Formats: sequence, C-alpha cells, structure tokens
Amino acid sequence: MPVQTLTIIGVGLIGGSIGLAAKTRGAARHIIGVGRDPRTLERAIADGMIDESTTELAKGVAEADLIIVCTPVDRVATDILSTFTAAPKRSVITDAGSTKGNIVRALAGKLPTTAPAFIGSHPLAGSEKKGAAHARADLFDNRLVIVTPTAESDLEALGVVELFWQALGARVIRMDPVEHDKALALTSHLPHAAASGLAAVTPLSMLGLTAGGFRDSTRIAAGDPDLWAAIFEANRDAVLAATDNFLERMTEFRRLLTTDDRAGLVRWLAEGKKVRDALGS
Amino acid sequence: MPVQTLTIIGVGLIGGSIGLAAKTRGAARHIIGVGRDPRTLERAIADGMIDESTTELAKGVAEADLIIVCTPVDRVATDILSTFTAAPKRSVITDAGSTKGNIVRALAGKLPTTAPAFIGSHPLAGSEKKGAAHARADLFDNRLVIVTPTAESDLEALGVVELFWQALGARVIRMDPVEHDKALALTSHLPHAAASGLAAVTPLSMLGLTAGGFRDSTRIAAGDPDLWAAIFEANRDAVLAATDNFLERMTEFRRLLTTDDRAGLVRWLAEGKKVRDALGS
Repeated sequence: MPVQTLTIIGVGLIGGSIGLAAKTRGAARHIIGVGRDPRTLERAIADGMIDESTTELAKGVAEADLIIVCTPVDRVATDILSTFTAAPKRSVITDAGSTKGNIVRALAGKLPTTAPAFIGSHPLAGSEKKGAAHARADLFDNRLVIVTPTAESDLEALGVVELFWQALGARVIRMDPVEHDKALALTSHLPHAAASGLAAVTPLSMLGLTAGGFRDSTRIAAGDPDLWAAIFEANRDAVLAATDNFLERMTEFRRLLTTDDRAGLVRWLAEGKKVRDALGS
Repeated sequence: MPVQTLTIIGVGLIGGSIGLAAKTRGAARHIIGVGRDPRTLERAIADGMIDESTTELAKGVAEADLIIVCTPVDRVATDILSTFTAAPKRSVITDAGSTKGNIVRALAGKLPTTAPAFIGSHPLAGSEKKGAAHARADLFDNRLVIVTPTAESDLEALGVVELFWQALGARVIRMDPVEHDKALALTSHLPHAAASGLAAVTPLSMLGLTAGGFRDSTRIAAGDPDLWAAIFEANRDAVLAATDNFLERMTEFRRLLTTDDRAGLVRWLAEGKKVRDALGS
C-alpha cells in the first residue's frame, strides 16, 4: 500500500533518490519536496523526483503521511523538531542521517507524547558526489537501511518506516542508535578520514604515479567537506575511539618496519587480509 | 620488431600477464618461463602464457634476448645476479618489482662491465589477486611503466626495455630509482598499509554494516602479506617517512575533532578533497 503523501525535506543526492525510487516503484502517490533553493526544487520537479515543492517546511509537511528528513546531520534534529509542530498527528517522521545517537540526544524530552512518531533511519547508500543531479532511482536497490528505534518508539510507526524502505528496494535491519554509531564510526567514518588523510599527504605532482590501489583507497576523499565535518562532530566520541584504534594499529606497523620484523609484518598484514577476505570482493 | 627469445622469471600474476600480452600482441617470438613449481609452469604453457618452461634459471636464460625478472622484490636482486652469469652477453635484463632503489643498491659494484645490461622497470599494474590464474593479456593496456635507468645504464638496452613495454600497450616514463621509491611510498605502499590497518580494526561482526566506501578503501588489504611485507622492507626509509606524514595528518584530524574545530575540520577535509578531485574519478 503506497504512502498517500510523502514529504522529503532536503532534495539532494539522498532525498532526490528517495523521490525517484518512490516514483519508479509506486511507493508514494504524491511527493512534496521541501528545500531552500527554489531553482533546485523546480529542477527536481522537472526531473520527476517530486510532484510539488515549497521552501516552507511547515507548509510542506502539513498534509504529509510520511516525512523523511534528508538534510545534513547537523540540521536533522532541528528539522525534526520543526516537523513535530507542523505535521499532522497521524504522520510518521524518519530521517536519512549517517549518525543516530546525536538525534536521539537532541530530541530527548522534546517529543510531545501526542505528536507524530519519529523513527531514525540510515540508508547505507550514497556517493562521493553531491546534490540531486546525481540522484538515482536504484540507489537503494538491495542496499542496507538501518532503523534505530528506542524503547519509547511507536511500533506501528516503525512498521511504516521499514515497509517504506523495503518498497524502495532496500533491506532493513534494526539497531540501537548508540551501537549504530559505534559500528559506523569504524565501517564508514574512520575510512573517510583515512582516505582524506592519504590523499592530503600526496603531492599533486605525484598523482601521475598512482594506480588502482590509490584510486580506490582514496575515492571517498572527494566527499563534501561540510557534510563530513558535521558527521564527524555528530559522532565525535565513537570516531575518536575508532581513530585511536587505527592510530595504534598504524604505529604498530611503524614499529614492526623500524625493527625489521618480517614475521611480524606478515602477521600484521594477514590480520587485515583476513577481515577484507571475509567481506568478499 | 618482436623480441626473438623472451625469458620470464617468475610466472605469477605479472609474469603470466607479460607472457599473455606478448603473445597476443606479437611482442616476442618465443617465450620461456622459469619457475619453481613444474605444475604451475605446465599450466602456464597450457594457458598460452609461455612456450616452454624450466625450473633451472641458468638454462632458462641461456638463449634469451630479453629477460624479465618477476619474482617478489626480496628475490629480484638475487635472480638478476644469477642471470648475469648465465645469460648471453647480448641480452638485456629488466624486472617488474615495486621497489627500485634496493635493487640498485644490491647490484652496486657487482655488475660485470662486459655482462648483459640491466634496466629496472616497475609496471603500475596489478591486482590484490595473486598468481598466474589471475593473469590477463590486457593488464598493461594504457598503464604506466616506470623505468629507472642510472648514470651507468646502457642506452641501447634502455631502448629495448622501453619498446618492449610499449609493445605490451603500456606508457613508459623514466625516473631516478630513489625518486621512484619516494613517490611510490606515498602513491602505493602507504595506501596499502592504511587499507590493511582500516580492515584490521574492524570486527568481523560489523562487516554486514559496510557499504561502498569501506569496500573501496580497504580493497587492496586483500593483497598477499608475504609480497607486501617484502615491499615495505625493501622501501623501508621512504615508507617510514610516508607513514610519519600520514600519522601526523591523522593526529591533526584527532586534534581538530577533540577541540570541536568545525572550520578546521572542513579545511582539513577540503585539502584531501582537492588532491582527490585533481586525480579525477
């Protein structure tokens, strides 16, 4: 059963792809896009991502059944709070942010009991490319979406959110918001920082001497600095812990190399290979 | 003009691909493979990589015009020295190792002036997959091969080596061996260590929560630990210097995050993005 009225707040890569996927798969009857730039919104209508648009959040959510907040992680909580006061009581609110604990903390004690229900979501899909121009109807095909209900979450709303992501082609699992953030610090946020670090220490004059290894290991360093700075700050404690683990690991590499410990280096490399081999190619 | 007799010492991913490429492109009339495992060599003949094989290096190079040493970097110098005493004076020797300075140092003063000429080569092509089973005739298509002549190098031999790689479809540039090693420490060796470090600090239980970013940034961690430990040791000083730059860069990330310096984090990320954007996608 498709969503009657879907409102997407923030029509960029993720929001635009949600619109395209919902259209293509018939997951929503009517889609409203909320954004700040009227030209971007007009283009999103022309590209078939949304049916109508507004720059006023309150107006955009007034008739919505499902609202997805797709703004940068440092704006998600504010946009959810604005949505609470403007959306119909029957509606369900979710988001698409890369961090979840910060939203739960920001909303704690501020959720009116009679208000629309909120369930956090994080689709593990994206691109180093930014903006609705790179949106794709198949962005969520067979990708994982992590939903992060808490003890207080409305189970009916949880079902609405899970079914919607599945209707876009995604697989859905549930996690505790804090566990989500700890895991993603290792599987997504730290790799981004390391990729950026690798790129930054490489002089531009040496780029001609790179091959596939450098290309792949630094690809995500092309991501948007503002979006990623916000993600790192929103998940600061877990990212710091992951960074410390990584720095310790690389310092061990340095020590093994300094002491010419061949067997130790082979073991060190074999531990990384074991994990990567388990992931598959 | 094709090479009359080509001998490939070490018929693995690189050696096997050289054989396939030379066959496909008519770059050699007769190809001899030298290896340690007769079954691997038989398979290489069956797969059309080489025409004949031997486990005796001296026998394999006795009639060769061009010899390419494709063994792991910690065996290249020894195999070159064995080749010097067994190969015809007219022949030209090169290699395909990822490090070049260690070979120049190992050979210094040991090159008989009347012996075959040696010119170092490093094809920037490969795979995290190991062995002749993964060899490909197009491995060098439009890839870069760095040749590393020294002041003592024979210019005619240099031409033979450069034309051979070009005949396999590669682009060729010349570099000083030490400059090569400094650059590759940053563009290849450090990224490998960082990819391994990222993979190793990730618990196996979290692999289900990874997406394309983790997959790409850790792909090369699946490489062979023995081959890579040898590369790190062969290029130890430059890899240590690159690792120190990287550790400093990541420590700066840690400091910016700890102090909640949003503007600093955005700048830090923008510096990495600038380099990665310059490389292109």
